[in-house]
Amino acid sequence: MRLANIANRATLVGPDDQIIDIATGSGGRFGTRIQDCYERWDELLDVIADLPVTGPGLSQVPLTDYGSPAPQPRQIFAIGLNYADHAAEANLAVPEELTVFTKFVTSLAGPYGTITLPPGTVDWEVEMVTVIGRGGQHICAEHAWDHVAGVTVAQDLSERSMQLSGDAPQFSLGKSFPGFGPMGPVLATPDEFEDPNNIALGCSINGEPVQSGTTADMVFPVPEIVARLSRITPLLAGDIIFTGTPAGVGIGRSPQRFLQPGDELVTRMQGVGEMRHRLR
Amino acid sequence: MRLANIANRATLVGPDDQIIDIATGSGGRFGTRIQDCYERWDELLDVIADLPVTGPGLSQVPLTDYGSPAPQPRQIFAIGLNYADHAAEANLAVPEELTVFTKFVTSLAGPYGTITLPPGTVDWEVEMVTVIGRGGQHICAEHAWDHVAGVTVAQDLSERSMQLSGDAPQFSLGKSFPGFGPMGPVLATPDEFEDPNNIALGCSINGEPVQSGTTADMVFPVPEIVARLSRITPLLAGDIIFTGTPAGVGIGRSPQRFLQPGDELVTRMQGVGEMRHRLR
Repeated sequence: MRLANIANRATLVGPDDQIIDIATGSGGRFGTRIQDCYERWDELLDVIADLPVTGPGLSQVPLTDYGSPAPQPRQIFAIGLNYADHAAEANLAVPEELTVFTKFVTSLAGPYGTITLPPGTVDWEVEMVTVIGRGGQHICAEHAWDHVAGVTVAQDLSERSMQLSGDAPQFSLGKSFPGFGPMGPVLATPDEFEDPNNIALGCSINGEPVQSGTTADMVFPVPEIVARLSRITPLLAGDIIFTGTPAGVGIGRSPQRFLQPGDELVTRMQGVGEMRHRLR
Repeated sequence: MRLANIANRATLVGPDDQIIDIATGSGGRFGTRIQDCYERWDELLDVIADLPVTGPGLSQVPLTDYGSPAPQPRQIFAIGLNYADHAAEANLAVPEELTVFTKFVTSLAGPYGTITLPPGTVDWEVEMVTVIGRGGQHICAEHAWDHVAGVTVAQDLSERSMQLSGDAPQFSLGKSFPGFGPMGPVLATPDEFEDPNNIALGCSINGEPVQSGTTADMVFPVPEIVARLSRITPLLAGDIIFTGTPAGVGIGRSPQRFLQPGDELVTRMQGVGEMRHRLR
């Protein structure tokens, strides 16, 4: 099952890419805000199981109508250094525990459009994002996927100078300029994947592939992330987790490379599709 | 002007500590949720200017009725190493730019009650918290206080092992156990202070003073924090900022000292009053 946030309305996407508005289709049982869907996730699954997906095709939706499939989470967790090859290119040890920062909510954006680059060294990081459906504390790894509403693809755009400055560098602010957390175009439920722990993802700049990996290479796979986070902080419905990036970012290259005005960044994940952003 | 969150209702506290429920007093113009008050801050100031504060006294309110005066912010900023004497005791350089992490929202709590200690090394940090009223981007320092609804006192409780572990330690998770961000009992507007940039604050354990300082010693005073944050991320109404702690924390002592079950932690700030928490 796939969901999208189209013209600020929660939308169900059928197997043939036809769409139906959830508020209308449910006879008002659900409102228009996609973020509210996660609060009543089990009920939503029941309701949409019976919806006839006979609307227009997804391809007819103007790209500017797409928003983030989880635009107003109460908590945004982001995991650093979660692929061994990326930790190596960053010259940092593979962590023995989760490295957790946040992206502030004003950085979230939709899957298409332009992103304004601040002056400096802005780098790309393709990431899988998981959205929590059923919240909880002390969730065990073997049941963790039952608490995940679905996954989508995102960029964890990062202004490297700010991210890494100081004696005790905290990643959050340098990764939170407006537009630095675009995601979409759809949320796919875990059952859409043959193996939700092995999903291909990558990104390219102006047609040149720069990152290509699979979530199977995570140091802490999604079940382990959910288990370890929920030992410390309760997870709430609609919370999102940026799960880290594989190798291939610009700061790890020789010479280093950063995003430039005019670049087109295309970000894709198996089962979710692709995002397109023009930098300016 | 002072506000409190009493029995989950936004409450105005008058000069003589008498209280009035804002939803009732405003004839329903405002609802019961204190967090919603920040969304319409200027309007709230107009409304409460005319409220007759003739209710019962604050001293008659059961302590268990108090909640955080800002319990559901969309963004929680926390500034590290913002007092030179605390940076010194932490053996870290005074930062040249803001050191910004978050406390996840599930860590917020009210000003009285018990806090469960996880096993480990939990330390105290008295801090002033500012709550944003009028949001904005690129706020200049000289107008920053106009964007602040008010200030309160908080603890930024910190599990030090988790906070400082790994090659790229991120402070957020080790500071986000449930109850690790208590604040209150009231929010005081900036005009309650002769100089809002010079407010005394401190805390004691079992009656022994352990921290005592003034916000005048901040490396980045509140106007500078608001200006620098809002250059990067828009500030939203109701966002909160933990502004850092002065010297006197447990990890900086010789021998080091951490909170123990049974300890009573009392946290106070001029103009705001004191919080009391029992550790267990």
